[in-house]
Amino acid sequence: MKRIYEAELESKETKCYDRPLYRDVRFESASLGPPTRVSYLFTVRPEHCNKNGVLHGGCATTLIDVLTTSILFGIRRPDFWILPGVSRSLNITFLRPVPVGKEARITCELIHAGRRLAMIRAEIQRTDTGEVCVTGEHDKANIDPRL
Amino acid sequence: MKRIYEAELESKETKCYDRPLYRDVRFESASLGPPTRVSYLFTVRPEHCNKNGVLHGGCATTLIDVLTTSILFGIRRPDFWILPGVSRSLNITFLRPVPVGKEARITCELIHAGRRLAMIRAEIQRTDTGEVCVTGEHDKANIDPRL
Amino acid sequence: MKRIYEAELESKETKCYDRPLYRDVRFESASLGPPTRVSYLFTVRPEHCNKNGVLHGGCATTLIDVLTTSILFGIRRPDFWILPGVSRSLNITFLRPVPVGKEARITCELIHAGRRLAMIRAEIQRTDTGEVCVTGEHDKANIDPRL
Amino acid sequence: MKRIYEAELESKETKCYDRPLYRDVRFESASLGPPTRVSYLFTVRPEHCNKNGVLHGGCATTLIDVLTTSILFGIRRPDFWILPGVSRSLNITFLRPVPVGKEARITCELIHAGRRLAMIRAEIQRTDTGEVCVTGEHDKANIDPRL
Repeated sequence: MKRIYEAELESKETKCYDRPLYRDVRFESASLGPPTRVSYLFTVRPEHCNKNGVLHGGCATTLIDVLTTSILFGIRRPDFWILPGVSRSLNITFLRPVPVGKEARITCELIHAGRRLAMIRAEIQRTDTGEVCVTGEHDKANIDPRL
Repeated sequence: MKRIYEAELESKETKCYDRPLYRDVRFESASLGPPTRVSYLFTVRPEHCNKNGVLHGGCATTLIDVLTTSILFGIRRPDFWILPGVSRSLNITFLRPVPVGKEARITCELIHAGRRLAMIRAEIQRTDTGEVCVTGEHDKANIDPRL
Repeated sequence: MKRIYEAELESKETKCYDRPLYRDVRFESASLGPPTRVSYLFTVRPEHCNKNGVLHGGCATTLIDVLTTSILFGIRRPDFWILPGVSRSLNITFLRPVPVGKEARITCELIHAGRRLAMIRAEIQRTDTGEVCVTGEHDKANIDPRL
Repeated sequence: MKRIYEAELESKETKCYDRPLYRDVRFESASLGPPTRVSYLFTVRPEHCNKNGVLHGGCATTLIDVLTTSILFGIRRPDFWILPGVSRSLNITFLRPVPVGKEARITCELIHAGRRLAMIRAEIQRTDTGEVCVTGEHDKANIDPRL
């Protein structure tokens, strides 16, 4: 599975909105489970922050958006989530700030993958304290035209 | 009010995560109401998109995050939301894609501002068709230390 | 449309969880639009409240669940939302309490109905002050077996 | 802790909206942790269902509302969450139906308790299959007047 996720990180096209983030994301671990989980590490740089010097809510959401999506690459089969789908909703809760310079772990867990909808949960934790700083739920809709 | 919002757009520091977006956002209108509303225009460029050539969910969320926050500058008084607060949650729903090259209107409406929490709703619409493409709710917590 | 919604209110089966609420809900108005909107009136009785004597969050959510669903009866066609679907998510925000004895208006607006998913927004307002007290977003999945 | 939660279940007043549910909820286990967790068991009866004979979304939400709140009784101290607060938001996702007659486990986990806001996550699982059927996030605001 390591190979799948690392290949995914490397394959990102140059002009995408999320492209600049991939330089700072490292694959950490994956498990097909259940539960299906994947984790990444990320170091917060000034360009990921807001005026208060902490991880920007928009950046946290973008990370959660793309990294929760990556979990679907681990479960795809010819007849099941062959494409990673489109976002239906992202619900993000900000519990604590992640200060610039800190390393964070982004853990994604597949809560449910049905034929048409999948829900993946994410948590962003500081690796130095273990504190959960941001949580998110990502609801994805399958767009396989054969459905 | 125009002046407040335009000054806010111009004052953004160079290194912020949301800084690159401000070049592409234009103030459109504001009304103190009630309801308190502000709208902006935005043209979707390739660097705001995902691999499918449509506005990236992370970019849409970042726009909603920062533009809903801007509404709080319009209602601030010495003893009420003197600071724009911090995000508690962002709930975003993606209804339709916004294709690259299209112009979008981002309308923000203050639903409620209490002493400690405020909720602002946003909609991203295509200006050519009027279709609502993305909706969001942003819950903000006041961090005025005198509270 | 009045007839559709009133018939729906009356047709509820005896044993449903939401059945006791229907006695206290009155159809107010409907418009096919766009936007498609329907509103109901509701008087808060002690059995709808929590220990603080205000509308219970669970009761507010149940009202929003069933009344937003009712909007789909107004748009159904033989090939489009012939069934009212199942809930995918309910996101409810509580802005102000609704005290026992007060009348509330529950306004539901269809934000988007696609082939497979529909999103309806609701607001619960006090009719005496006009204040928005609760807001909700209801995402529904179509379960028409022909899809 | 068992005593705290059982006393809480028994103390509910007669006229509350959630009162009828308590007859069917049994305390299962609790741990102060971290993580702070409490679980309950619940059997789905016809009066908790919708027309399709599965647990009503409004009933699932009411259960999540009140049982996630109960976790705050386990952490209260004279200067910290002395009152259980009021709901700010409930975000519920319905993944699978829970059929009438089935037993469900409702597990609540405290994700974060700050001075003013607390977030508790819940999952409703079928005990026979272990499947997660409903997930929820409950954001509570502290209303201690000394804050």
